Amino acid sequence: MAAAGQLLRGAARAPPALALAAAAGRRALGSLPPGVAAGRGGRRAALAAAGALGGLGLGLWRWQRAAVAASEEDEDEEEEEELRRRFMAPPVSGLRELRRRRRELRSRMELLIMETQGEVCRALAALDPGAAFAVDTWERKEGGGGISCVLQDGEVFEKAGVNVSVVFGLLSEEAARQMRSRGKSLKAKDGKLPFCAMGVSSVIHPKNPHVPTMHFNYRYFEIEEADGTKQWWFGGGTDLTPTYLNEEDAVHFHKTLKEACDKHDLKLYPKYKKWCDDYFYIKHRGERRGIGGIFFDDVDSPSKEEVFQFVKSCAKAVVPCYIPIVKRHCHDSFTPEEKLWQQLRRGRYVEFNLVYDRGTKFGLLTPGSRIESILMSLPLTARWEYMHTPPESSKEAEILEVLRNPKDWVH
Amino acid sequence: MAAAGQLLRGAARAPPALALAAAAGRRALGSLPPGVAAGRGGRRAALAAAGALGGLGLGLWRWQRAAVAASEEDEDEEEEEELRRRFMAPPVSGLRELRRRRRELRSRMELLIMETQGEVCRALAALDPGAAFAVDTWERKEGGGGISCVLQDGEVFEKAGVNVSVVFGLLSEEAARQMRSRGKSLKAKDGKLPFCAMGVSSVIHPKNPHVPTMHFNYRYFEIEEADGTKQWWFGGGTDLTPTYLNEEDAVHFHKTLKEACDKHDLKLYPKYKKWCDDYFYIKHRGERRGIGGIFFDDVDSPSKEEVFQFVKSCAKAVVPCYIPIVKRHCHDSFTPEEKLWQQLRRGRYVEFNLVYDRGTKFGLLTPGSRIESILMSLPLTARWEYMHTPPESSKEAEILEVLRNPKDWVH
Repeated sequence: MAAAGQLLRGAARAPPALALAAAAGRRALGSLPPGVAAGRGGRRAALAAAGALGGLGLGLWRWQRAAVAASEEDEDEEEEEELRRRFMAPPVSGLRELRRRRRELRSRMELLIMETQGEVCRALAALDPGAAFAVDTWERKEGGGGISCVLQDGEVFEKAGVNVSVVFGLLSEEAARQMRSRGKSLKAKDGKLPFCAMGVSSVIHPKNPHVPTMHFNYRYFEIEEADGTKQWWFGGGTDLTPTYLNEEDAVHFHKTLKEACDKHDLKLYPKYKKWCDDYFYIKHRGERRGIGGIFFDDVDSPSKEEVFQFVKSCAKAVVPCYIPIVKRHCHDSFTPEEKLWQQLRRGRYVEFNLVYDRGTKFGLLTPGSRIESILMSLPLTARWEYMHTPPESSKEAEILEVLRNPKDWVH
Repeated sequence: MAAAGQLLRGAARAPPALALAAAAGRRALGSLPPGVAAGRGGRRAALAAAGALGGLGLGLWRWQRAAVAASEEDEDEEEEEELRRRFMAPPVSGLRELRRRRRELRSRMELLIMETQGEVCRALAALDPGAAFAVDTWERKEGGGGISCVLQDGEVFEKAGVNVSVVFGLLSEEAARQMRSRGKSLKAKDGKLPFCAMGVSSVIHPKNPHVPTMHFNYRYFEIEEADGTKQWWFGGGTDLTPTYLNEEDAVHFHKTLKEACDKHDLKLYPKYKKWCDDYFYIKHRGERRGIGGIFFDDVDSPSKEEVFQFVKSCAKAVVPCYIPIVKRHCHDSFTPEEKLWQQLRRGRYVEFNLVYDRGTKFGLLTPGSRIESILMSLPLTARWEYMHTPPESSKEAEILEVLRNPKDWVH
């Protein structure tokens, strides 16, 4: 896989940090159940669990590192190799820094978004073995950077992008104004608001019109106010945009998301499904972009830990809610007319993203943002026909009806 | 031509008004030089001139009508037939009303935009004989309406739209705010601002990557203030978006526009060329949409009559500045790679129109606007490749260079 070569180049930038943190990640766990410690899956589980062990604290951490220092060199290499398989590139903050701030939620969130990026990219690449993810790491002059993974023109995927970004610095006036307009009261110190924003964001456009487009994004925001207190919130969601309606797929997708939500609070799924239908609304068309999913923003209760655990469940649900649908349909036969309808729907996707999407608009207007990473959400190809109207009772009219009048897929 | 059938249907809506005004238009001229009165070209010139004869007044007009009433019926039919050739559909305001308000600039402007629509559609259709313009007349509930002419998927043109719209009513709060933010002081009466806006707007996307995309728009705005005085202004422009640079074409295009401007004031062309380069700027890409042309807005001096005459010269320059370029290249051979580059440039066109274009944004956010007419400006097909960068010194790099650093094509 071409991505592996790029990964190796990327990883070579920061080997010591990677090695240290990888070793630390495994050891912090103590002993693992038999069958979990061995093999690739086991290691993956181990580091993911370590990512959530912020409560252990730095004292214990250092002690553990000292105790195993003698055999560290061999293990470093092994761990580095392991990380190359798990993450798509070294994390923006560096593993040494993440380890140092292990108890902080932003470190745990950064590990989660890196983990999610790796998981989703591997799952997609496995379905499109002839194609490869291009992996680009980029830096933001004003602070932070990101890792963009894009697979283009594959057999199964027309364009699949999975991006991580971790940016920090001082909030721009424009960003602060946008946040205040959403009801946030931000007390700046000398007009300055230090912030940190991170997230994983992805849009998957498959080739076959019977495989839906999927988007997900999970993000965390932190702002330091004048008195030193921090405002924080999470946002995100996962949503599906089929070209043709397949009820079985729609139910599977929503059921998987509902299960992830229900583990935390039974009120979340219905609330966030509605929010999704409301948010992805192409007002000038009177249509939603897709058939739903979940969406939420500015979530800062009941507690940081609880919201993080909820977001983690959502992120873990991405692969199981979507990949089975791709597998089921990626070899379906289709007609040129079905491909044409897909291209017209792609046009609507572009309309939503460029005209309404808060993240895209904000990104385009913010100096220093990486345009290619923001616009990877656009499909490889799209089409606009003047006055296209599908015939009544056609399959095309069927999906339009759902886009105009959203449905509850699970109760 | 299929459009003829649609035209006939459209024209059948208002035959008396059409017939009267057509007859009036010719007679108001008195005698024409030999060779002008006869034949299609002669009639076209005659009615165009009649459109500018607002100063004659209604008295003379009525007298003339009475004098020729006896033979009117036969001539009505002839004139109606003539109008069907000249306009694409009956004008929004109706010819009776236009005749009644013949001295007013808005009537003369409406005739000009109708004339321009017909001229451009005929010139394009002549180059693409297998294709046809679909002609749609539409009404706006809040006041006014329009005529949309779209040719799609022809041999020469991928998508060509030429729209006329004439809307009036009360300015929305949002529109008023937008205008005030551009520096207009609008004194409303009981919060109400009666307005009238009209224009012709067109985007032509050819199939062959060696034929550039062309856009033009000429519009007139009138707002009645609390004390009954009217603010008015004109806006518009014509600009070219080639896939590949052809200096000869670029010079011809700009030279034709410069000649149109120079007839009125030598300062206009350099000023409006710069305005064009500044306006069609895709900020997030650091590129212009095209290689230039002219653009202006809020023009309300030296006088209504002089600006109207300038706008008329610009509108008349559309066919001569563009059609020769289409003729020259529409049979050029091209490679799949050249088609691909065209599609990527079409993607940028979409980005500009959906993210920045004032008219598109305003239209999408205004209730009651006709979305299909606004978005006919989008190409039939477009493409977005992640991180596409043309090789150095390639033809693709050459056009990018001009889009990044606009050139003066004529001095």
